[in-house]
Amino acid sequence: MPALGEFDLIRRYFTPPVLPAHVTLGVGDDGAVMQLPPHSDLVVSVDTQVAGVHFHVDAAPAYIASRALRCAASDLVAMGAEPLGFTLALTLPVAEESWLEQFSVGLLQAAQQLQCPLIGGDTTRGPLCISVQVHGSVPSGKALCRSNAKTGDDVWVSGTLGDGAAALALIEKRFGFSSEAADYLLQRFYCPVIDFSLGVRLRGVASSGIDVSDGLLADLGHICAASGVGARVELDALPVAAAWRDSVSAGQAQQWALCGGDDYRLCFTAAPCHAAALQSLGDLYRVGCIVEGEGVLVVDQYGVPCEEQGNTSNGFRHF
Amino acid sequence: MPALGEFDLIRRYFTPPVLPAHVTLGVGDDGAVMQLPPHSDLVVSVDTQVAGVHFHVDAAPAYIASRALRCAASDLVAMGAEPLGFTLALTLPVAEESWLEQFSVGLLQAAQQLQCPLIGGDTTRGPLCISVQVHGSVPSGKALCRSNAKTGDDVWVSGTLGDGAAALALIEKRFGFSSEAADYLLQRFYCPVIDFSLGVRLRGVASSGIDVSDGLLADLGHICAASGVGARVELDALPVAAAWRDSVSAGQAQQWALCGGDDYRLCFTAAPCHAAALQSLGDLYRVGCIVEGEGVLVVDQYGVPCEEQGNTSNGFRHF
Repeated sequence: MPALGEFDLIRRYFTPPVLPAHVTLGVGDDGAVMQLPPHSDLVVSVDTQVAGVHFHVDAAPAYIASRALRCAASDLVAMGAEPLGFTLALTLPVAEESWLEQFSVGLLQAAQQLQCPLIGGDTTRGPLCISVQVHGSVPSGKALCRSNAKTGDDVWVSGTLGDGAAALALIEKRFGFSSEAADYLLQRFYCPVIDFSLGVRLRGVASSGIDVSDGLLADLGHICAASGVGARVELDALPVAAAWRDSVSAGQAQQWALCGGDDYRLCFTAAPCHAAALQSLGDLYRVGCIVEGEGVLVVDQYGVPCEEQGNTSNGFRHF
Repeated sequence: MPALGEFDLIRRYFTPPVLPAHVTLGVGDDGAVMQLPPHSDLVVSVDTQVAGVHFHVDAAPAYIASRALRCAASDLVAMGAEPLGFTLALTLPVAEESWLEQFSVGLLQAAQQLQCPLIGGDTTRGPLCISVQVHGSVPSGKALCRSNAKTGDDVWVSGTLGDGAAALALIEKRFGFSSEAADYLLQRFYCPVIDFSLGVRLRGVASSGIDVSDGLLADLGHICAASGVGARVELDALPVAAAWRDSVSAGQAQQWALCGGDDYRLCFTAAPCHAAALQSLGDLYRVGCIVEGEGVLVVDQYGVPCEEQGNTSNGFRHF
């Protein structure tokens, strides 16, 4: 490892001040040790972010760290799990102290906010690459999977869509936004909202769930494929943030909402009998329904398929 | 992800044919779900291998995979844990099918041998980098830590030392070895022995443990630092494989055994009352003892410190 030394580096930057009681051994041994709540299953998910692919090398280190943890944690929400802790596999070209300082502050702050402590990791020398593995627990047998969507279910999303794609367009200077819209988009990109309580409340209510990382059509397509069903998405029901909606054409906003990735919202399905209760939770939007068949069809307000609409590369009509 | 497509790639190469019953959800959802045995703690460890740093880019893909999984699993042995499963975070510059085919065959074969199934992962595009996170279980409160070595304990290792350093010297063409020695060394390097049953048998016997990845002196130094003790290592007690011992000078062999990394043996401490039982387990070598004080001192057969011996860069005498 770098000049600073792997062990000094871990001690200085990656040792959380306090560990919750269920982490009986944290950073610094061959492995970390955790206790799960009684009668629960373990949920694990890993998410890798590579410099130049998933984030810009010159992004603020605290933002990179926040985003890496939150994007990984999004998968726990989608499984209906509550957080236990995470490990960090950090590959760095050099151990530059100011970068590490800012990265670790951002990481430990996000960990604190999510109540998901850093429990271990590995630091190696190489091209900048960040793998975060999150661990969570669900009551035994209650994990929210992709494979149980039923014909007739409603399709819901847990917030506005298209923010991730709009943020990328901003970061890559493909679109100009007002400074207010830009602030909103950068916040959404680097600090996506992770609400574990939502996953918990959806236990016994949602029939399937997935986090929107590849875009609504693609991710809902995964639910459909895993469940052996099809879906209809209502174009006019897609929630798009007021902060930037008027900065682009309606078609562009719809395309980003349907096909853009990096939203880290939850997409889930639930039987219609739950609709009123779900509406009352706030910030949940019904965007379509599950139907017989396969693939995802986008329809207009009259239920007519939007053949000509927007994107072709991501298979707008059928994923 | 690569041309092949992330999902096709995962489906084709990284979906194990059969999963054990405790893995209730494997590759293909937002997270994997596992059940732990009753009354057990979860042990996790992550290990990253970077092309050009931890292995040669042109090494056989099956070897790279085997080594990545086994090196990570070595940490579970050192915690006294039994395997539950592992995730793979694989970053690849291109999805070359023959490479992936060989890599996945090597990976799934090692997983089968270790009874440690692949349960999930993430594939991303970027410089070749492999993070393996292993999950294991130990009876509650029984994890083998670094911090409980006691003055008077014996220090043991679970097999020959120096193989890793000798193998690196072979691979980097710094030393010539007979073809028989070379076969042995490459096997040791790419396919280190992982014996979960050893970790299990040491429960209640060993007072502390660590896997020898950075070299005996460095790793025993970690035990000493964590336990607030010192150690003496007896130079003549170091086990070196007959397969290559006579190919190098005695001093070189000792230096590799003391300071070379990549051995992936278990170093542990145990009270002298366990010595006879440990000897009977086979392939365990007593190499020293725990003393008051701090740091690791190497002594000759008369107990005299070996001030002049070998290595200086790794802090031969005091780590």
